[in-house]
Amino acid sequence: MSKKLTIGLVGFGCVGSGLYDVLNRSKLIDARIKRIVVQDPKKERSIEKSYFSYDVNDILNDAEINVVVELINDSDIAFEIVSSALRKGKDVVTANKKMLAEYQTELIRIAQENDASLLYEGAVAGSIPIIRNLEEYYNNDSLTSVEGILNGTTNYILTKSNHGIGYAEALLEAQELGFAEADPTLDVDGFDSKYKLVLLLKHAFGITVSPKEVLNVGIRGISDREVSYTTEKGYRIKLLSRAEKIGDQVVSFVAPHAIAPGHSAFNVDNEFNAVVVEALFSDKQLFYGKGAGSHPTGSAVLSDVSALKFDYKYEYRKTNPNNQLAYTTEAFVKVYVGSKYTDSIEEVAFYSVEETFQSASYSFQVGWVKLSVLFDLNLNARKDLSLLFLPENIKTEKGLSALIERNLFIYENQEP
Amino acid sequence: MSKKLTIGLVGFGCVGSGLYDVLNRSKLIDARIKRIVVQDPKKERSIEKSYFSYDVNDILNDAEINVVVELINDSDIAFEIVSSALRKGKDVVTANKKMLAEYQTELIRIAQENDASLLYEGAVAGSIPIIRNLEEYYNNDSLTSVEGILNGTTNYILTKSNHGIGYAEALLEAQELGFAEADPTLDVDGFDSKYKLVLLLKHAFGITVSPKEVLNVGIRGISDREVSYTTEKGYRIKLLSRAEKIGDQVVSFVAPHAIAPGHSAFNVDNEFNAVVVEALFSDKQLFYGKGAGSHPTGSAVLSDVSALKFDYKYEYRKTNPNNQLAYTTEAFVKVYVGSKYTDSIEEVAFYSVEETFQSASYSFQVGWVKLSVLFDLNLNARKDLSLLFLPENIKTEKGLSALIERNLFIYENQEP
Repeated sequence: MSKKLTIGLVGFGCVGSGLYDVLNRSKLIDARIKRIVVQDPKKERSIEKSYFSYDVNDILNDAEINVVVELINDSDIAFEIVSSALRKGKDVVTANKKMLAEYQTELIRIAQENDASLLYEGAVAGSIPIIRNLEEYYNNDSLTSVEGILNGTTNYILTKSNHGIGYAEALLEAQELGFAEADPTLDVDGFDSKYKLVLLLKHAFGITVSPKEVLNVGIRGISDREVSYTTEKGYRIKLLSRAEKIGDQVVSFVAPHAIAPGHSAFNVDNEFNAVVVEALFSDKQLFYGKGAGSHPTGSAVLSDVSALKFDYKYEYRKTNPNNQLAYTTEAFVKVYVGSKYTDSIEEVAFYSVEETFQSASYSFQVGWVKLSVLFDLNLNARKDLSLLFLPENIKTEKGLSALIERNLFIYENQEP
Repeated sequence: MSKKLTIGLVGFGCVGSGLYDVLNRSKLIDARIKRIVVQDPKKERSIEKSYFSYDVNDILNDAEINVVVELINDSDIAFEIVSSALRKGKDVVTANKKMLAEYQTELIRIAQENDASLLYEGAVAGSIPIIRNLEEYYNNDSLTSVEGILNGTTNYILTKSNHGIGYAEALLEAQELGFAEADPTLDVDGFDSKYKLVLLLKHAFGITVSPKEVLNVGIRGISDREVSYTTEKGYRIKLLSRAEKIGDQVVSFVAPHAIAPGHSAFNVDNEFNAVVVEALFSDKQLFYGKGAGSHPTGSAVLSDVSALKFDYKYEYRKTNPNNQLAYTTEAFVKVYVGSKYTDSIEEVAFYSVEETFQSASYSFQVGWVKLSVLFDLNLNARKDLSLLFLPENIKTEKGLSALIERNLFIYENQEP
């Protein structure tokens, strides 16, 4: 049974105007945009002026409008609009990952209390239908790992870096191509990837975390030294967002990784995104596509709108009292830490060291370190330290001790 | 609300026994296998004998069993079992593509009449959740193209061929590795890929076709000549299953294609499968994973079983009276036809020819040909002809005439 949809659109950038074209000019989907709320009354618009309003209440108080599509940048204003719409029983489609990650619990509660649907496929990995797949297809407890390249800007910069172009030049190129914002902090420091990861944690494992509980190390620290270290081994650097189940615990973080050619994301280059899902009893699945931009995001918004015709809602089935999974940062990862200063490297409390390299101009150390140690280092602010995660599984303390015993490491704990 | 599932399993090969491990030995999913029907009472089994029965009625007549998982080879016997189970109101999970393609209309009708669910994610591209995505995520009319590598055996053989190993040797290797059956006809002649394509046509475009209406050209005809022709251009040969919307028509076929490095399936090698979905307003999406074997198929069966807990059914929303799309073979494709005999090539009624090559030992011709012409040639039986589809869009007669006029081809129609 399909429902008649009358849409109020908030924001009219590329995605919004593309959506107007598809919905109001084609007959493909039986849904119409009735009103569009924008900020600037003076700006020239490509369509009839009668559609526009400058007061969001014109949408919120219009009883005929049963769907609000929210496409603005500011996450706090977006939260006000989205929560008001849900309280009025209107369904909402949004792609605002920052809002969704920061107000997750409230938004889900408000939607449920008002029997409204809140859909946001476009918020994670653009046109890749990863939320829907985690929600519907991987709707049992068989998932073991979800990881991905969730940010096109950093992937573009890293692709260039892997081919020998420096960070600054690559960033400039990305900005010129329109992939990177004037202030690229959200992208290059891994915040954007982290907001998306917070949403994946919810839909993959039923884990609710606040963004500040998840480590995000960005790519500003990647110098030519790290690129050489990586390419000499035949590896590539990718900013991965990972969530992994180890027993009853889930470990999750965003960090630059040196990955080997066998890794499913090895060939995911430029502005493309990819998500690799691993489940018990199945091999890895790769979902690949464009992660941002008006068309990929627009196509996800369009699919969400279509789903509302059939009253589709996320069920959050994995968020239930029987869910035994707990989020933890008490796990160990294998990392490379490089610096011009040996003192800086010594600040990092390694659990065990496997390699050290020292020269007059540069030093590095490779070994196992606890995630919480990395948290405390506040690495995005450290110009003296470069970090790469290495292609090894995350380990618990028990798993790591067993490994150390087996391997009889040359170097023992330096800092207990 | 989740439903208690009691399963009757028909067939106990790799997938069946893996399913037993996951369902009865772990507590991950609240579903249990109660009875397993197998053919051979004498065969040693890895689990307690009390589970087994040799009469399928022990499952069909057991009122407690509400789900039948069918995992046998023979499509006619499978149809008898599956249709009987559905008639008794039991839900069915199967991966039997041949049965599903050949009895599609009957099976869907019987399931609907008895309000039973018939799920078959494992039938197409193993663990890649393509049916579910076409059904749920691409549930509007925005799809323009679905194409994929749907058969692991032929992809393995072609991967080796692209690297200079001959067909016979590669087939033997695939058989030794367990990818290819002793009689590889279903795989290498493209029948297996076609059955899967028939299911994709239904879920992507709401088109119902019988397998015999879809052209399948396999890979037996690929000789070293075709491999050289392709690799010289930097292309690779892949057996693609394609379904493409052109206006109100849908064109579909299975054939070996020479694809360029930019093609999303270019790096899909060995036994891997991939499906590329293109929708209006979105870029291409690639789904990638293992397409066959016990674990990939098992994981799809597992997801279907989990979905039954929430009474999931395919809705076939695109099969409705408003669907304007019609299936056609009246379209033109650009092909390479090679042969030792120029007479054989002259049998092919090209609409227009773009290249001809002749030498004492080998000749080929490149040009546009109508799909229905290829149908009539019965190419799988022709040892004297080798066919490759070339990387050009499918065209209607109108589109092709415009192209010819624009390009002022050197060669005009040879056969009107």
